[in-house]
Amino acid sequence: MNTWRKAQELATQQGIDALLVTPGADLRYLTGYVALPLERLTCLVLPAQGEPTLVVPHLERQAAIASGVDTAIASWQETEDPYALVARLVGDVATVGVDDHMWASRVFALQAAMPSARQVLAGPLVQQLRIRKDATEVAALRDAGAAIDRVHDRMAEWLRPGRTEREVGADIARAIIDEGHETVDFVIVGSGPNGASPHHELSDRVIEVGDPVVVDIGGTMPSGYCSDSTRNYLAGGIAPAKYLAAYLVLEEAHEAQREHARPGVTAESVDAVGRAIITAAGYGDLFIHRTGHGIGQETHEEPYIVEGNDLVLEEGMAFSIEPGIYFEGQFGARIEDIAVCTADGLEVLNNTPRGLVAL
Amino acid sequence: MNTWRKAQELATQQGIDALLVTPGADLRYLTGYVALPLERLTCLVLPAQGEPTLVVPHLERQAAIASGVDTAIASWQETEDPYALVARLVGDVATVGVDDHMWASRVFALQAAMPSARQVLAGPLVQQLRIRKDATEVAALRDAGAAIDRVHDRMAEWLRPGRTEREVGADIARAIIDEGHETVDFVIVGSGPNGASPHHELSDRVIEVGDPVVVDIGGTMPSGYCSDSTRNYLAGGIAPAKYLAAYLVLEEAHEAQREHARPGVTAESVDAVGRAIITAAGYGDLFIHRTGHGIGQETHEEPYIVEGNDLVLEEGMAFSIEPGIYFEGQFGARIEDIAVCTADGLEVLNNTPRGLVAL
Repeated sequence: MNTWRKAQELATQQGIDALLVTPGADLRYLTGYVALPLERLTCLVLPAQGEPTLVVPHLERQAAIASGVDTAIASWQETEDPYALVARLVGDVATVGVDDHMWASRVFALQAAMPSARQVLAGPLVQQLRIRKDATEVAALRDAGAAIDRVHDRMAEWLRPGRTEREVGADIARAIIDEGHETVDFVIVGSGPNGASPHHELSDRVIEVGDPVVVDIGGTMPSGYCSDSTRNYLAGGIAPAKYLAAYLVLEEAHEAQREHARPGVTAESVDAVGRAIITAAGYGDLFIHRTGHGIGQETHEEPYIVEGNDLVLEEGMAFSIEPGIYFEGQFGARIEDIAVCTADGLEVLNNTPRGLVAL
Repeated sequence: MNTWRKAQELATQQGIDALLVTPGADLRYLTGYVALPLERLTCLVLPAQGEPTLVVPHLERQAAIASGVDTAIASWQETEDPYALVARLVGDVATVGVDDHMWASRVFALQAAMPSARQVLAGPLVQQLRIRKDATEVAALRDAGAAIDRVHDRMAEWLRPGRTEREVGADIARAIIDEGHETVDFVIVGSGPNGASPHHELSDRVIEVGDPVVVDIGGTMPSGYCSDSTRNYLAGGIAPAKYLAAYLVLEEAHEAQREHARPGVTAESVDAVGRAIITAAGYGDLFIHRTGHGIGQETHEEPYIVEGNDLVLEEGMAFSIEPGIYFEGQFGARIEDIAVCTADGLEVLNNTPRGLVAL
């Protein structure tokens, strides 16, 4: 069944009369259409009943047709009002669902064009579908995992003392493309004290002998599915003893989380299993983020592996397991794999060595 | 003066009590902070009077500090509600401006957290500042233009019959990075009939001898400023006579637009000057898009060079001039330069040959 037909079923159940979906992962998931996120309005109008229409700027019409979209296409000319067109297609309804990442400018323009329709978020509905990956999607995530693993396997080509994080990062970015990704989504090279900032990206800091280096990288494959994996490297020399002690605890936590995660356990329990080990070893205050995030056509999506999320994991749910320990001003470490729940267990999609890699 | 102080002045004039700005070009422009567009809320709270606060997730705190942000920083922990924090910082006000690209999920969450505040778009206000580039910004755009020109200059290394658009595109993407960009924003290689779809990107079509090929490429420099230039190539062989006739008209239109655009004329008049030439030659119906878009820290921003936009151009306004002629199912052509208004004329930032380049 088309994914948009499944979304219609959910919309009917949830009392949403129409879904309005602009370019992004939800649009790609529902129609297969990859649209540039530009200022001209592209919007899927998906009524709970009846046939959908993809509204596109006239100059995107051929691109939309070429993408194989299986909905009707309505195009608007450069000087027309596309919001009035969407309103006509939606008709007089009580509730419209707008995609979670729709721009505020569009939310307001649709509100003005359809003043009597109440706006709600469509994201939760689409996420109900996206959160369970089918076999094709799991295969795409497996390919993405293998591609980013090949980049980590080549790290010795680039990461060495005397080079800056930015230089190393530029080489990694090229390799992310060379190993099969279509786009580079992020390249984090956190050397020494920069490794203590989880989302530090790249700086002009020169990597020194003995620096622990966190390398967290990912991209999007031609399939639309994303990779994301973090490994830890020692740029020659001798690792600080305090760092090594924490690293062993981190490995233990990660292993326990991989063994625990499976259908039937809650998302938050995966976080708790790792956090308990890290806390018992005295590093609880240094594990300053959740354990993970779902992944698919977006790097971060449902399910979030975080305290308070009592969602029960099911077959096909894919997410990162990435505990970390951060010593502010000194160094940090994080081990990250993408994993997907199988019928009765867990398939881990990143398989390079998880230990500290000496280069 | 800080850009955020200028934004405060405009907010006061326009009766907006506070601006709320999430990651994107507006946030970068106002604070210099380049944040990943992730699901955890990062939001600049900029009251019309008083001091601003940048709200960040705790794990981004160090990255925000390292970026040299000159505002206060308030961070929230993984299990806190960041929208309640923003509401506390804003206080009891009548009107808040949200950035144009703020996600719907955030618009609604802020509405729920501040039910008595009316939401308006902050974009028009920030665009009033961003639309006039200062000397530093013009220099950054000049560097970006030179970088993308170097990629066009190397086209013969990659573009030849027998290769697919996708293969050529992958090489161009690498060169965009090699020539100084930080990210690849888009790579359009429209060969033969694909050139007739203005936003066609890449396909597996094999380029044939005698194909006209539209190459429209751009990226973002480490400065944050974008490049965007389109040139037309002939992959060996003999160009169709019908194509060449249209191409000569396109060159004439582009030249007339470059000569016309300057401070004091309207945006729409630049479009009209080129459209008149193309229409007089009988191709009016085949010029299916506006003439151009502004450019800066976003590839597409104000001012739009389009019929109906009576904005008077001023010194420092930067935009594309990109007329095109498209023969559906056969081929297309588009010539695109970025240009910036000087005190009394126009500086064109792309300077590779605009004629049809035979490879």
